[in-house]
Amino acid sequence: MSEANPLTTRSGQIFNRSTGIPKQGFASEEHPSLGMVKTDYFQLAAPPNELILENGERLGPITVAYETYGRLNQQRSNAVLILHALTGDAHAAGFHKGDEKPGWWDDMIGPGKAFDTDKYFVICSNVLGGCKGTTGPSSVNPRTGKPYGLDFPIISIPDMIHVQKHLIDHLEIDRLLSVAGGSMGGMQALEWLTAYPDRLKSAIVIATAPKHSPQQIAFHEVGRQAIMADPYWKDGHYYGGPPPEKGLSVARMIGHITYMSEISMAEKFGTRHGNEKPHKFSAGSDVEDYLHNRGNHFVKRFDANSYLYITGAIDSFDASKGKNLSKVFKEVKAKVLVMAFKSDWLYPASQSKEIVKACKLAGVDTTYCEIDSTYGHDAFLLEVEEEAHLIKYFLQKVSVENGLSGEYGVTDYAI
Amino acid sequence: MSEANPLTTRSGQIFNRSTGIPKQGFASEEHPSLGMVKTDYFQLAAPPNELILENGERLGPITVAYETYGRLNQQRSNAVLILHALTGDAHAAGFHKGDEKPGWWDDMIGPGKAFDTDKYFVICSNVLGGCKGTTGPSSVNPRTGKPYGLDFPIISIPDMIHVQKHLIDHLEIDRLLSVAGGSMGGMQALEWLTAYPDRLKSAIVIATAPKHSPQQIAFHEVGRQAIMADPYWKDGHYYGGPPPEKGLSVARMIGHITYMSEISMAEKFGTRHGNEKPHKFSAGSDVEDYLHNRGNHFVKRFDANSYLYITGAIDSFDASKGKNLSKVFKEVKAKVLVMAFKSDWLYPASQSKEIVKACKLAGVDTTYCEIDSTYGHDAFLLEVEEEAHLIKYFLQKVSVENGLSGEYGVTDYAI
Repeated sequence: MSEANPLTTRSGQIFNRSTGIPKQGFASEEHPSLGMVKTDYFQLAAPPNELILENGERLGPITVAYETYGRLNQQRSNAVLILHALTGDAHAAGFHKGDEKPGWWDDMIGPGKAFDTDKYFVICSNVLGGCKGTTGPSSVNPRTGKPYGLDFPIISIPDMIHVQKHLIDHLEIDRLLSVAGGSMGGMQALEWLTAYPDRLKSAIVIATAPKHSPQQIAFHEVGRQAIMADPYWKDGHYYGGPPPEKGLSVARMIGHITYMSEISMAEKFGTRHGNEKPHKFSAGSDVEDYLHNRGNHFVKRFDANSYLYITGAIDSFDASKGKNLSKVFKEVKAKVLVMAFKSDWLYPASQSKEIVKACKLAGVDTTYCEIDSTYGHDAFLLEVEEEAHLIKYFLQKVSVENGLSGEYGVTDYAI
Repeated sequence: MSEANPLTTRSGQIFNRSTGIPKQGFASEEHPSLGMVKTDYFQLAAPPNELILENGERLGPITVAYETYGRLNQQRSNAVLILHALTGDAHAAGFHKGDEKPGWWDDMIGPGKAFDTDKYFVICSNVLGGCKGTTGPSSVNPRTGKPYGLDFPIISIPDMIHVQKHLIDHLEIDRLLSVAGGSMGGMQALEWLTAYPDRLKSAIVIATAPKHSPQQIAFHEVGRQAIMADPYWKDGHYYGGPPPEKGLSVARMIGHITYMSEISMAEKFGTRHGNEKPHKFSAGSDVEDYLHNRGNHFVKRFDANSYLYITGAIDSFDASKGKNLSKVFKEVKAKVLVMAFKSDWLYPASQSKEIVKACKLAGVDTTYCEIDSTYGHDAFLLEVEEEAHLIKYFLQKVSVENGLSGEYGVTDYAI
């Protein structure tokens, strides 16, 4: 896909049942090679029926930004929910008008790709607490008419899933063919397995952990400290003024180091440039420029408070709920595919194996694959070929087992 | 050693040939179980004979803070120079008056220990660019009467060694029995091997690299960015006002994550405490409190500009000087002991093996040992038993080969 193939805005927004939420540039669109791409908002939990969060607090109304790719079949049985990572959003595939880059998992979603939009109806929504259309700390608090800031309640991975479940209800999908995600997306997939065991046929759990280790928490915590140390953070009430860009940039740079492997860094930044140094203490390595660029780029697209809330949700996640993981997985009815990447040191394969072991002990139909890659944690976004192959055949098997025909039912469209 | 055994100040400072530099609380002291402990200053490079730095700039006068333990023998042949890491100092062993903790390598230096002060005359100096008595960016610039700040010139590992060579000249030691250090101390040991091949009999190179990888540079760079993002940093000219404590604290926290291993963190911080959370987004993990405490403690003892200058020196270090490492090591005359630790992911064993391979190819008498430890990079400070054993027998062998008697010549003291 290139700029030569821009998305064209479609009239008629089939799923738009929301209550007049401003579109903020989102629109239903059609892309020549992606089939139908729809971007929409859904609103839930309007007072007095606020969503009751895991910690007992109430939140509402909640807007959910989501995109869909492909078409839902007549039986509404070919839907796959894609779950994004820490800084992801609903825009998983295709180009929005004017974009130079496609959605974050475009390599995996599209006709003939792993999540084949000729066969499956693919959905991706921005998580609760996010800053890309779904309600989060930068959204307007209806009680004050101002952005929530730190008045936004603490949210959890189960709360994110709860909101997604409402979206799936709204789309009138009784049972998802699959849920799939890497990193925090993998945690959400694990949570789906146990929170709504009757609502999904399978889950694809990639490069993740059932619970964060102290090291994983530590990397997030230093990022949070960098944000909160920025004088522009102002206890989270910076909206309307300059945001804490320097702190957020440092947090992002720490993240990027953990997303790459020692090897991928050495391969990418092995050479040193000349005397053009970004500052007096620079070693003149390209890795410095890379980190600065990533940091500077990130602060333009992400909200610092969302970073705090979402990293907090990840760090507090525990798939076992403090119990024995294999006992918790006894509830699971779905088929599970677990994937890890050899050079991923942020979410090492040992954590994926922990999930697999608990699944096997619980009698869950589980497949595990450790993919050889030098990309580190980023591999789930970059090491596409083998990952796509595994997902493709896993979904094919799940489809056949669940009575989807050779055409996967997509000859008759529900919508 | 405990608080019950405080150091007592000795009168008479044998090595004090300095020119009236204020002692800043340092003093010659005697410790019952450490034998003689001396703390002193040495001044060199007084204008117009400034030290010419690697980058061509001139710096002087330079004050060097150093400590010695044990006694120099008549032949002046039993001296071992200890080389400290990034945030270390000259205070390697024993207690200073009022201190609750001993020097940073106290487990290794003392009677009967690896660096046996009954046999060896052990020297440790604070590096050039430091903030613990040796001239650095927080020292007064004689030209302005104010602290240097960023007017301090860029310094390198070879510059640090150059200053140490002057100290050794000053102590009238023709040839060191050994130089030893871990991390940045190991880099200094590598530099000693090739910079002054005739001035040392052996080198102990621990948990280090011949050159920083992009990942190693990246961790330092994010720490530097955190410091420079602190509004109190003020382009390095913060002396007389509040220092950039929050930025320096974030840098230190990043460091601490890299110094520990995933396993040692899991062992140390496996449990979560109750509802006592340091902030709204905390996962309630003890690792968060640990990092905050380490960060808060560090800013009281270390200068942010020294952190910038010294990390810059480490990141720019290249033992091969851009050439083939084994060719550069052809100059080496000393015997070499290289040690790495299995769980050290900041300075992985592969980097130590690179040093060993280059030494072997250059025909250098080299011993390598990879020590089993879960402590990560911190192991060189904590995994004492095996490390001490290896150093002890290595030094014993070097002593015998170099004609030191069974008593290692310490029956006749030069000083």
